[in-house]
Amino acid sequence: MRYAMGVEYDGTGFHGWQRLGPATGAFQPTVQAALELALGSVADSPVAVVCAGRTDAGVHAQCQVVHFDSAASRDPRSFVLGTTTRLPPAVCVRWCVPVAADFNARFDARARRYRYRLVNRVVRPALGRQWLGWERAPLDAEAMHRAAQALVGVHDFNAFRTVHCQARNPVRDLQCLQVRREGEQVVFEVQANAFLHHMVRNLVGSLLLVGRGERPAAWIGELLAGRDRSRAGPTASASGLVFVGPLYPAQHALPPEVTL
Amino acid sequence: MRYAMGVEYDGTGFHGWQRLGPATGAFQPTVQAALELALGSVADSPVAVVCAGRTDAGVHAQCQVVHFDSAASRDPRSFVLGTTTRLPPAVCVRWCVPVAADFNARFDARARRYRYRLVNRVVRPALGRQWLGWERAPLDAEAMHRAAQALVGVHDFNAFRTVHCQARNPVRDLQCLQVRREGEQVVFEVQANAFLHHMVRNLVGSLLLVGRGERPAAWIGELLAGRDRSRAGPTASASGLVFVGPLYPAQHALPPEVTL
Repeated sequence: MRYAMGVEYDGTGFHGWQRLGPATGAFQPTVQAALELALGSVADSPVAVVCAGRTDAGVHAQCQVVHFDSAASRDPRSFVLGTTTRLPPAVCVRWCVPVAADFNARFDARARRYRYRLVNRVVRPALGRQWLGWERAPLDAEAMHRAAQALVGVHDFNAFRTVHCQARNPVRDLQCLQVRREGEQVVFEVQANAFLHHMVRNLVGSLLLVGRGERPAAWIGELLAGRDRSRAGPTASASGLVFVGPLYPAQHALPPEVTL
Repeated sequence: MRYAMGVEYDGTGFHGWQRLGPATGAFQPTVQAALELALGSVADSPVAVVCAGRTDAGVHAQCQVVHFDSAASRDPRSFVLGTTTRLPPAVCVRWCVPVAADFNARFDARARRYRYRLVNRVVRPALGRQWLGWERAPLDAEAMHRAAQALVGVHDFNAFRTVHCQARNPVRDLQCLQVRREGEQVVFEVQANAFLHHMVRNLVGSLLLVGRGERPAAWIGELLAGRDRSRAGPTASASGLVFVGPLYPAQHALPPEVTL
């Protein structure tokens, strides 16, 4: 039986999502290793998961989605409660539903959503610091929002990926990029069909140069057109980034939070 | 010179606000001890602070306010930046302003505001767990809000304090108690002239019995009138509680976030 599962985690103490060694969780604390260890205990046999979007070290997830196969006869509620009980406090299972045998959490996702939240003030954040970025210079959120609209659409995002990015094709469909101020915080909401490695943090890092008034709004479009990785702004810190979750077509009957 | 200072902290790793031993920060990690140690380093002589409202172990503050005296000639900005640099990551200074020599952070506060936030779902929270409570049974937030209105006003709140509360007078003016749902979270906003020990967490704990349907809304008013500590609901967990801050008359010219 194949299952889809929604997983929430605080990425602070993990070396990212992807399992790096044997699935024991012992050597490299990654979210995938912790999840597979807990799931294997509930299913009473080894379980391997495939996720919608791998996250880097220190990046969080509101609703990562995975699929896995298990011959164990457990009702989905047992997978939710039993797995959460066996997970460290920084990870929990939001839901679990049976899916078609050919459902794939990675390839069936039509879009991914990320949120980047930072505190914009002179002093670093204390309360909530684990999932907040920080920018001490005053930011013009409206200017960043206007500049960001040049990125929306189907483009080659080579300028915004890390040199370690392994994707063969740098073209992505950026469906939405909104920047807004919420009191002393600035929030970036980004949605694309898929993302390149470090793409969200590089988009945010470049927009910050516009927000600080160090670059004009038109510079963002020029960066994109130039496709030159060396010209973009610095990569924004991982702690402010949350993978809100992927979106799937309604036919898969997944929970509303991950359905288009 | 007397100063007022706004302090933000994540109370997770502290044994509450109040300094318990010598002001070295070495024996008992409390917020007051950490702050006095950092302030003393900036001022180059020992500094003692008086706060608006002491918080318990595990309780957080968005803007605690303290006053202190220092003969050191430092501009307020140096106190903000220098002190924050010397504080652990869980504490920072939001602002610092000179005040009249008779300003008292505790006695001049006309009101205190607290926020209690919990996740209402079957599984415990992972992302944000350090400052979220958790209730697995479905809650009727509107029923809790209606029931809570019986508490608003000047009352003897003996039923809602801990046996360790040292206040001689249990009468408080509860100015506002609002309960609302925000998605899968339930938020309680409380304002009073002052609070008894554990009062907010006991109010929340009793309202949760109404929210779960285990007590009728009228029970809250009966509890209050009965003044019997043994009849109230269990004390809600500390992690969901944030001291939003005190409120002072405008004459003190403090920042807007702590001004009536």
